[in-house]
Amino acid sequence: MISNALTLDDARRRDADDELAPFRERFLFEDPVPGRPRLIYLDGNSLGRLPVQTAFTLQAAVSEQWGRRLVRAWGEQWIDAPTRAGEAVAQLIGAAPGQVIVCDSTSVNLFKLASAALALRPQRGVIVSDALNFPSDLYILQGLLEGRPGPTMLRLAQPEAGSGGMLPNLHALASAIDEHTALVSLSHVAFKSGALYDAAAVTRMAHNAGALVLWDLSHSAGVVPVELDAWDVDFAVGCTYKYLNGGPGAPAYLYVNRRLQSEAASPIRGWFGEAQPFRFDLEYHPAPGVLRFLTGTPPILSLLALEPGLAIVNEAGVEALRRKSLAQTAYLIALFDELLAPLGFTLGTPREPHLRGSHVTLRHPEGYRINRALIADLAVLPDFREPDNIRLGVAPLYTSYEDLYEAVQRIAQAVEDGLYRRFSGERQAVT
Amino acid sequence: MISNALTLDDARRRDADDELAPFRERFLFEDPVPGRPRLIYLDGNSLGRLPVQTAFTLQAAVSEQWGRRLVRAWGEQWIDAPTRAGEAVAQLIGAAPGQVIVCDSTSVNLFKLASAALALRPQRGVIVSDALNFPSDLYILQGLLEGRPGPTMLRLAQPEAGSGGMLPNLHALASAIDEHTALVSLSHVAFKSGALYDAAAVTRMAHNAGALVLWDLSHSAGVVPVELDAWDVDFAVGCTYKYLNGGPGAPAYLYVNRRLQSEAASPIRGWFGEAQPFRFDLEYHPAPGVLRFLTGTPPILSLLALEPGLAIVNEAGVEALRRKSLAQTAYLIALFDELLAPLGFTLGTPREPHLRGSHVTLRHPEGYRINRALIADLAVLPDFREPDNIRLGVAPLYTSYEDLYEAVQRIAQAVEDGLYRRFSGERQAVT
Repeated sequence: MISNALTLDDARRRDADDELAPFRERFLFEDPVPGRPRLIYLDGNSLGRLPVQTAFTLQAAVSEQWGRRLVRAWGEQWIDAPTRAGEAVAQLIGAAPGQVIVCDSTSVNLFKLASAALALRPQRGVIVSDALNFPSDLYILQGLLEGRPGPTMLRLAQPEAGSGGMLPNLHALASAIDEHTALVSLSHVAFKSGALYDAAAVTRMAHNAGALVLWDLSHSAGVVPVELDAWDVDFAVGCTYKYLNGGPGAPAYLYVNRRLQSEAASPIRGWFGEAQPFRFDLEYHPAPGVLRFLTGTPPILSLLALEPGLAIVNEAGVEALRRKSLAQTAYLIALFDELLAPLGFTLGTPREPHLRGSHVTLRHPEGYRINRALIADLAVLPDFREPDNIRLGVAPLYTSYEDLYEAVQRIAQAVEDGLYRRFSGERQAVT
Repeated sequence: MISNALTLDDARRRDADDELAPFRERFLFEDPVPGRPRLIYLDGNSLGRLPVQTAFTLQAAVSEQWGRRLVRAWGEQWIDAPTRAGEAVAQLIGAAPGQVIVCDSTSVNLFKLASAALALRPQRGVIVSDALNFPSDLYILQGLLEGRPGPTMLRLAQPEAGSGGMLPNLHALASAIDEHTALVSLSHVAFKSGALYDAAAVTRMAHNAGALVLWDLSHSAGVVPVELDAWDVDFAVGCTYKYLNGGPGAPAYLYVNRRLQSEAASPIRGWFGEAQPFRFDLEYHPAPGVLRFLTGTPPILSLLALEPGLAIVNEAGVEALRRKSLAQTAYLIALFDELLAPLGFTLGTPREPHLRGSHVTLRHPEGYRINRALIADLAVLPDFREPDNIRLGVAPLYTSYEDLYEAVQRIAQAVEDGLYRRFSGERQAVT
């Protein structure tokens, strides 16, 4: 429901009606800085906020478990952490138990699963993806193919014509997938535009051609309904530090469909993926099921730190989160139409709700400098993606309508008052 | 200096003379349990103790950096963590700056570097190791070879005859290395026996045959002098959660000799190994130097948690640590001779100081049950390795002579009083 009067009062009314509003208190908010506007954080799509509980969980893990239980904590608390966190993720992505574990980074998990997929299709040397995929995923896939014998190719479907390279083109994907395709690997939500793929349809396309499919759910899990089992997806990976609030660089998850688990093999055979690691046998015997995709000893502190965030997302439930996320991205688009389009911004994100993830991308020729001004002078934290995209992440667990209302006022101000002009457009290493 | 009178008073005199004794206070010790003997922790070779500073470092990382600085902390604190920790490790392993980073697990790092090594020797399909290597390392190497085209082989040199499979045999290694050998990969200190390899000599052997060498320093860094540059080692990996006190599953390190950095390539091309990750180019350009071996986003909390432990090791200095470690393992062996040999124990660790790492392995036909009794009834925490090895880890930063004296009394008691008999010999999953 978009009101015609986009006022602060209206934003506050929306917050008062928000069923998820109480969840905001589960997260730490900054102390106000006297004389400065309050911080509006719209980068939960990059690094989710700190759940208050996490600080306590981690303190116990350090002082009680590591500090006092020492190595005994492995049997008592730690050894099951990859599956415990995995099952918490599984509930968010439509996976029955026994198919998801948390370990390593998204990149390493993608490497393992894509390698397993190629081994399951030994006569096929093509991986299909598209130019909207996260570059790190493309690097991994390209590297994997280069290490293979025989003719191989990473085939990238082109984006929708006229979308400035921002929107997926399912027809181009369909044309790219053929009898040489071993694997189709895509991001469920595109990182620049926030465009959402019809994963069920693409999975069917892949399967119809005899190919396997691997989804990167980094930008969708926890804010968009994901039904891996129902869609009959083969493999999936995703990070936990965005909408799942797992903390900086928190370990990633991976999903292997149960029907593939006995034949799929990890190329990285660490002892945590061994059937009986403490037997210290010189020969490797893969652990049953998805556990064989564990590698070395997992980073326990980072792994335990992600559990409170997962619990909160599960408590709120993906349906409610999606409802609020869609309402908030629609609200942002309404604000964009009224306040930002007249200032030279264009919308990088699809207007159709079923094609949107949970961030809204504003494009502007001075996007880089505007983003810098927002961070440095206006206490708004979005992020920037080349060449001209300002991403406004909606994290429905803690983003308020007032946040969005106020952020758009400040963005307009950055342009109207020319505040961005004092910043250089020269790119910095970390953005 | 081994006194003839191995008494408690003598142990305490040794502690009073110990130049490193003050470092013990840098670590957390358990609260005493009324009515129970104090805990003696001899598993620092598996999981190092918690440095007191680490709890505070982690609290700041969580509450201040993640909680309040949010994504800005990437540029302010986090992006350099892999190299910052890497340089702290470099000082311990004789590596000039620019050759060591901390990331991923030991298994994943071994996979990356062994893969890079094989690519540098494309005409050679043999990796040489031995049966004393950590099984996880062997699994990784075997998996890597199976994924390669052409004839490949993991050739395992046999242990020293008559050592019960416990001691390395450098002659057997020399015979195994030939013109087909691409890589020699070994553990610098063997995990069961604590035997120390002459890494300089083995490195020369490998180089003389045109092979590359990769050392796993997990059981040596921080307690044994390591001189990677001086020995002209090609590659090395190691974990940080043993003698470096980095915490459970703390990220591992990897070393790539500068002379190989421009040609060596990682098979796992994550965005953190990209030259300009925030350009989001669709084509991968490896970062200069060792940085290209970074993969995905590192687990920042686990990574920051390891810095205080590294700082303490560097402050104490490897020379002093080695001095104390050797004195303490010699002391343990003297106690073994006097008290344990008569009870049916045999020594699994070499008596020659230059052949020892920092743990002493006691073998006993009832080793598994004795180990369980020590943990459950006698407040001694060693660990057990199949088939009959009880490992007593000496962590010179916090192990006291009194710890060792008292532990050996209790081990003797476990056997003399038959305390172990109430425990089953059936193996448990986590040991």
